[in-house]
Amino acid sequence: MKRREFLAAGAAAAVALSSRIDLKAEVTDSTYDGKSANQQANAHLCLCSQLGIIPGKDVEEKFAKMKAWGMEAAEFGGDVADPERAANYKKALADAGLKAAAVCWGSHGGDLMSFEKERKQRGTDDLKKVLEGAGILGCTGVIYVPAFNGQSPLTNQEIRKMLLDDFPALADFAAECGTTIIFEPLNRGEAFFLRQVADGAAIARDINEASEKKCGMAVMGDFYHMSIEETDMMGAFISGGKLLKHVHLAGGVSNPRRTLPGLNQSRFVEGFRGLKYIGYTGPCSFECGCPGDLDREEAIQNSLNFLRKEYELAVI
Amino acid sequence: MKRREFLAAGAAAAVALSSRIDLKAEVTDSTYDGKSANQQANAHLCLCSQLGIIPGKDVEEKFAKMKAWGMEAAEFGGDVADPERAANYKKALADAGLKAAAVCWGSHGGDLMSFEKERKQRGTDDLKKVLEGAGILGCTGVIYVPAFNGQSPLTNQEIRKMLLDDFPALADFAAECGTTIIFEPLNRGEAFFLRQVADGAAIARDINEASEKKCGMAVMGDFYHMSIEETDMMGAFISGGKLLKHVHLAGGVSNPRRTLPGLNQSRFVEGFRGLKYIGYTGPCSFECGCPGDLDREEAIQNSLNFLRKEYELAVI
Repeated sequence: MKRREFLAAGAAAAVALSSRIDLKAEVTDSTYDGKSANQQANAHLCLCSQLGIIPGKDVEEKFAKMKAWGMEAAEFGGDVADPERAANYKKALADAGLKAAAVCWGSHGGDLMSFEKERKQRGTDDLKKVLEGAGILGCTGVIYVPAFNGQSPLTNQEIRKMLLDDFPALADFAAECGTTIIFEPLNRGEAFFLRQVADGAAIARDINEASEKKCGMAVMGDFYHMSIEETDMMGAFISGGKLLKHVHLAGGVSNPRRTLPGLNQSRFVEGFRGLKYIGYTGPCSFECGCPGDLDREEAIQNSLNFLRKEYELAVI
Repeated sequence: MKRREFLAAGAAAAVALSSRIDLKAEVTDSTYDGKSANQQANAHLCLCSQLGIIPGKDVEEKFAKMKAWGMEAAEFGGDVADPERAANYKKALADAGLKAAAVCWGSHGGDLMSFEKERKQRGTDDLKKVLEGAGILGCTGVIYVPAFNGQSPLTNQEIRKMLLDDFPALADFAAECGTTIIFEPLNRGEAFFLRQVADGAAIARDINEASEKKCGMAVMGDFYHMSIEETDMMGAFISGGKLLKHVHLAGGVSNPRRTLPGLNQSRFVEGFRGLKYIGYTGPCSFECGCPGDLDREEAIQNSLNFLRKEYELAVI
């Protein structure tokens, strides 16, 4: 069957089978009438960081520096799965006047995207533990990668199906903990599955629709990965829309690679336009390196100032 | 290796291996300084159609109606591979005062995404013929689908690799003909590979970068497929950006399915915002059905008026 015949046959069948609407009716949805989708008046650049790059002998010292430098939140690691540790972090955050951003968890070795029952169960149990810790701490979500390259025998289609089969229940579990599971699209060098924000957003949407609470799955964008995989940062973030719950800040592939923003040639204006357009107020968090010959305290503050200027330049 | 260790090791290696830039240097790229990427002043709604839905005993009569209704261009089928026919269409277009939009070609049974040499060669030869015809006719491009479901034994990763291996040469052939090859993302019910505009744009970009002429591959968006696969029409079209060379107009999945715009509940404002933002002036072409109990001439004109109103409502 040729393509146009296929389409024609499909259209005819759909018309014949469907209950007919009133064809004379006006399209009455007034959502769009004269209103822009531009939410920039509500947008806000909420700068934060993973803890590793922040100098300091303990978490209290790190938080104090972050607060002093104008950061608003902190991104954690998988150790928040320990409830006691989560509670301690929560107190330290409150003392410092910071909020909790996301937990950077990863793929758990790809265990959840496996046909081996025990392996899958291990991954699922650990994800639940970290979701509980994230809930205690008040984190916006737990960052999840279905599989890094080589970690899963499944094809893209099979991974997508497994996510749709398994994750509605996990998304509801996350929502019950008061948090979310956040897909992180990576670049092809790290993961062949899930490389664009629009794809992650569409899978998250489909999982939410198949879940009870409809709100447990989300997506994030990482400027480094996006610099490789996206054709347009603004388009990508708009496709993330209300499902976008986290952003990683890092310079792209120019030298030095994946560095503090402002230390290589990567610009952030195009992406920030997208974040402004959707009225994004969630965390924008450092996940990047700092060249060893720089004064790290100075380099981080320079980077924050660079990002603030980029955000100002992001005219829609 | 845990995820953060992996990242840290990667960053350290990259810094050690790379030639260092001057870290004190200002980021001097002034592309973004105070300038918006909003190109709406240059945008224009260029309405056109495939020929099948247009009433008329011959192409001359169809073209005359299209012109009278304010359409600007016509979309063709694979018969333009016949150079004589292409020349005839060209004359008829000129007589009517219309332009050539794209050729809706399809997948050639998935032959180009095959490991069978002869099958692949057949598909390649036929694509070249239709590219030559499209060039004669002055078409903007030839719409290509790598594989409908069931047409190729390759996985998503293998299809992407085969496209990157084979299509730089075909993209250069298209450019030499004065036209392009346009990826059409479809919905999952028709094709598991290539379902989002951002993905098609990224593959087209990668192929162009690997080609000599850098301009032979493009992408399109189809409102029907997009209504299923995209989370945000505006984001998708912005991701298409300069690589976007064609748009198919059709109502989405509400009843009647894939119908003339305005005959079901699908709105076009969100997508038109994206087309305006990128300053799109290319064809927006009917690929849809018309319920049999309607006066088709009236239904098409109503649909065109509906689309013009939607375009006006598309405020950025």
